[in-house]
This record gives sequence, C-alpha cells and structure tokens, in this order.
Amino acid sequence: MDNVFNFSAGPAALPKAVMEQAQSELINWNGLGTSVMEVSHRGKEFIQVASEAEQDLRDLLSIPDNYKVLFCHGGARAQFAAVPMNLLGSHTKASYVDAGYWAESAIDEAKKYCEVDVFDAKTEIDGKVAVKPVSEWQYADDAAFVHFCPNETIDGIEIDGLPQTDKPIVADMSSNILSRQIDVSKYGVIYAGAQKNVGPSGLCIVIVRDDLLELASDILPSFLNYKVLAEKDSMFNTPPTFAWYLSGLVFKWLKAQGGVAAVEQVNREKASLLYNYIDSSDFYRNNIHPNNRSRMNVPFQLAKPELDELFLEQAKASGLVALKGHRAVGGMRASIYNAMPLEGVQALVDFMREFEAKNA
Amino acid sequence: MDNVFNFSAGPAALPKAVMEQAQSELINWNGLGTSVMEVSHRGKEFIQVASEAEQDLRDLLSIPDNYKVLFCHGGARAQFAAVPMNLLGSHTKASYVDAGYWAESAIDEAKKYCEVDVFDAKTEIDGKVAVKPVSEWQYADDAAFVHFCPNETIDGIEIDGLPQTDKPIVADMSSNILSRQIDVSKYGVIYAGAQKNVGPSGLCIVIVRDDLLELASDILPSFLNYKVLAEKDSMFNTPPTFAWYLSGLVFKWLKAQGGVAAVEQVNREKASLLYNYIDSSDFYRNNIHPNNRSRMNVPFQLAKPELDELFLEQAKASGLVALKGHRAVGGMRASIYNAMPLEGVQALVDFMREFEAKNA
Repeated sequence: MDNVFNFSAGPAALPKAVMEQAQSELINWNGLGTSVMEVSHRGKEFIQVASEAEQDLRDLLSIPDNYKVLFCHGGARAQFAAVPMNLLGSHTKASYVDAGYWAESAIDEAKKYCEVDVFDAKTEIDGKVAVKPVSEWQYADDAAFVHFCPNETIDGIEIDGLPQTDKPIVADMSSNILSRQIDVSKYGVIYAGAQKNVGPSGLCIVIVRDDLLELASDILPSFLNYKVLAEKDSMFNTPPTFAWYLSGLVFKWLKAQGGVAAVEQVNREKASLLYNYIDSSDFYRNNIHPNNRSRMNVPFQLAKPELDELFLEQAKASGLVALKGHRAVGGMRASIYNAMPLEGVQALVDFMREFEAKNA
Repeated sequence: MDNVFNFSAGPAALPKAVMEQAQSELINWNGLGTSVMEVSHRGKEFIQVASEAEQDLRDLLSIPDNYKVLFCHGGARAQFAAVPMNLLGSHTKASYVDAGYWAESAIDEAKKYCEVDVFDAKTEIDGKVAVKPVSEWQYADDAAFVHFCPNETIDGIEIDGLPQTDKPIVADMSSNILSRQIDVSKYGVIYAGAQKNVGPSGLCIVIVRDDLLELASDILPSFLNYKVLAEKDSMFNTPPTFAWYLSGLVFKWLKAQGGVAAVEQVNREKASLLYNYIDSSDFYRNNIHPNNRSRMNVPFQLAKPELDELFLEQAKASGLVALKGHRAVGGMRASIYNAMPLEGVQALVDFMREFEAKNA
C-alpha cells in the first residue's frame, strides 16, 4: 500500500520526508560508503550529527544554557528508575501526581527508591473523565521533586499548566514533547522516550537543569547518571547512534515546518477537526472532558462496539492504520503526533463520516 | 565512495546484503506502507520479526531450552550494572577476571553493588602481552558468579577456554558473539552489545539460564530485570524495534552463510591472513602473544609511528576506513567482525604490503 496514514501510538509514524532521506542515504551516508549506523560515535562525522541534533533541539525548545541535553539509552521506563536515583539527593521522599496510566507506572517504579507521596489528580466533571486543576494539586513538604506526566497516551488526557511549586518539576513528555511550546526554564527535568514525537524507539531525550547534576545516588547505574552523561556529551557508552541521527533529521524537519509554534498550530487544527466531528456525531464518542483532551492521542468509541472489527478492517483498507485502542481501554485511538499531516486527520474524519452513514 | 571496507571497532560494519535489504524496505516494510520502526511492537507483524530473530539466534548458537533470550535496551555498560543487581541474590561478593579494558570497566561498575574479588589474568610471555591460562584462574569461594570478557576490543586479546568453576559464568561477548562456536550450556549469562557482531547500537542481547531469574535485587530497575523481561518477551517496555529487526536480518544472513561453524572458519582465515602478514614484516608489529590474539580486533603498530597519519590517509583513499587504533593504545586497529569479508582483509594486506614497499 502506497499512501498510508499511520495512527500508531508508538512506535509512531515519522515524517515522510525524513524517512525518504534516511532511505536514500542508508548505505552511503555523507559519501562515506557506509551507513551512519556503521561509523564510530567518536568520529568527526557522527560528532557533527550529534551536536547538530542537540543544537536544533535547543533552538526548537529555546532551551536555556543552564540546561544539559542528554541522549540516553532506553525509553521513559528507564527514566522511571533513573529520575529518583538521580534527583533524591539526601531526600527520602518525592511527590508524584497521578492522572493516568503512565504516571502510575512511574509511581510504581519510584517506590523502589523512595517514599512516594501521591496526589490523585483524576476526577470527573459532568460525567466526563477529567484532571483536577493544577492550582488544587498538593505536594509533600519534604519531597525532593514533583513528577507528572502532561500527556497520557492511553487515557487520551493532556494537562494544561504546571505544578505550582518551588520544587524541581519533572515531566514525562514522551508523548507531547515538541508538539507545543513550553517554557523549559520552569522545569527541573524533562524526559521523553523518542518513539512518539522524536524518532525510533531505544532513545530517550533528557533535558536537565545543571544544578540538579550533583544529587545522584551511589546505586545509580553509570549509564543512567545525568552527570556522567553530561560530562561525556552522552557518549559515556556507545549511544543509539541511528536513533540519534534520525531524531536529528526530525528536528531539522520541524525547523523547516516553522518550528514548534507552527507545528502547535497544526496540532490544534488536527485535534479540533477530529474532536469536533466526534462531538457532532451520536455514532462516536470521546469520554474526556474538553479541558483535558489530548491533542496527541484521541481515543474514541463506537456507539455499536460490535462494529469495532469492521471499522478497523475498512479503515485499514482505506489506508488508515493502527487505529485500534489500547487493550486497557478498548475502542479506537487515533494518535496524531507531529508527523501526522492535517490531510491524514481529514481522511480519518471522512472515513468515519462515511462509515457512520452506512452503519448508523 | 562505492566500494569501502569498514574496519570500525564499533558501531561496526553490517553485512552489505543486510543493509541493502533494509534500504529497499525502509519506507514500505512488509507491504504495510510504513517502516518497521513505525509499527507497534505489540502488533502481529513486529511480533513475527521478534520471535523469528529469537529463534534464529537460538538455532545459530544451539541455545538450550532452559535459557531465556532477551533483547534489552543499552549496551554492555548497562549490563555492567544489571549483572550484579540481577545475580547477587543473598551473596555480597562476585569474582571478576581482569584481562583488559572492558573487564576493568565491568569491575568498576560492579563495585557499586558488591565486593568485587578481582583475579588479574594479565601477564607477559616472551615479551608479548598475554593472558594467564584459565586453569590458573582463581575465584573467591563465596562469590555469586564469575565474570569475564573473552574478547578485549581495545587490547586485541581473545581468551580461549572458560573459567574452571561450578559458579555461574557470566561472559561479556559484545565483540565476539556469533564469531565462533560456543557451548551455551556452560554459561550462566552471556551478554553482548549489538553494535559489533549483531546490529546497530542501542540493543544488548542477554542469554540467561532460567534458574538465575529469581535473584534480582530490590534496587534493580525493572527495565533491566531479567525475570521481568523474560516474562514479557522483552516487551516490558517498548524495545529498540529497528535494532531488533536489523539484528534479525543479520541472524538470517549468518544462517545463509552456513551458520556459526562456517563463519568461524572464515574468521580464522581472515585473522591468519592478517597476523601472518604482520609477523612476516619488520615494518608492522602486533604485541599480543599468539595464544591470545583476537580474531576480531587486530591492533598493529608501524615501525615508524611518524607515518601513522600517512598510512591512515592512503588507506582511506584506497577504501580501507576506520583503521585508527583506540586512543588508549595508538597505532592501527583492524576490526574484522563477521560482516568483514575475506576480500576486505586481503585488500588491507595488499595495501599494507604496498605501503611498506614504498616507505620501509
């Protein structure tokens, strides 16, 4: 199939132009006669890729100079362990805000390393799933940091605003990094598994304020130690070079789109298009309160769940793939990260309308 | 440059046929209209890739049924921490054999988690660097396991034979896995960063005997926990899917070459060709005793080190790249992993002979 719109939640679609460039130079990169994944990470050619990727990411997010950018092995789950071991210092407690599946997974892992003070932010408004406003969130006085996950891929929830606290704020932005403008200076640590908005799986971006580099626990594995990685430009060990390279291409593509502000505008349009259609229909529904609807992950259910399989089958035949909802939620989910063009969401809405007309 | 022989120590050259296949299907894999790196790791298409890769590796190494095969994030350095946290159980001590740079790096990391009993296996025979015979190695009685690194990429050392012990043997085979036949049943754990003989960086293969899965420490990050990974078929978190896929292609390529026995024979020929030429010349030398010369990494020095730069420059112009020795050793290093064909080593020897004739 040639023209496919891929709604996978992750590993997710990458920009078509990026994949075409990667293909064209896969076996002869930079005229070297080898692939980028076959050269030393310490050679000048790869160092150039690595530092350009960092600079482009710094430009895209206006990352202040007192923040380090790390390209780490693993994904968010590696950071679920790395965060407390890097940041607790002499503290024995950390505050975690629970607004969904991934926040809870981070909490489970953190319990290995500290006492976890959990603020349950889940609520209901008008019968819809919602998140309590950040102004109501509470934290333990003696917490080393406050952790939250601003976009929950499975639940389809996104949180506007930031924890109101002087403590370092740690955010798992795996599924919404680079999808909207943020003020990095408000955060202590931002981390993001690459496989949704950045690149292939196996790479995790960590952005860390440099005053937080001195707090590592003795039991922290060196390859997860922010200070070690910062001092070695993320080359303490051999980094996942191909993923780093491909992420760098994505950053250049984002710049070519006009940067994060421009991409955010498109993301707003994409999300509005889909939610507005869902809300206008009795055949489809989304049970998240409008205050907290994710712009990245749009779960929706059919009024007749017995048609789920038919929907997925016909969608696939129309080139709309990976729409099956997470097994914990069921129904459908359209993940519409940066790489999904507006026309892809339009094609989905057109298909949904047609399917409704035939099956309502 | 079109015809290049890449002697990189790692990330290293991958088989040409594998890279060509990866390129041809990079943006339309399996007729899906997307890349393999853009599909869910839990979808049936990727599960097929994942399980075939495991089965092919099992076939290649005749891995017994009571061993689990894990596809982990990170490389050997992640395992330097993961091994003690997975295997110590109620022990507080482990024995490590030191025969070079990587063994020492593993020792440094292990010291975070236990008392490390170090056996210094380095020695000299007839003025050449050598390793004491395995029959002389000694271990602490109360060690949980015995760790060694059978091939040292930087030193250019390879160890024949295994520790003589009833304790679980743990081997860092990052640089010689699949290069020679081994009896997996003699090991407790074998691990190997992919980027030398397997695939791209960011993936580490772990082969672990199943009775060792119950010993994990409470502080072990879940994503490094062998038992968790075994129970979830290495999909506790999103694995590095592209690296897994590409490694699977390498395994199929190895089978098509006739398997490990056939590849080992070629590796012997490649190494003999190069060492024999070096030994026949007064212009080049290798300072490792023949008992311990690595078949994978061949460091050599020029009698006139002032010609090093000229050698590298002219080699590169002849399509022989990445021959610069590790900064800790200097001189040259030719890494001749499985993917390096015999003709590549022949081309190197031809070049070396010509360079000697001009500059001796």
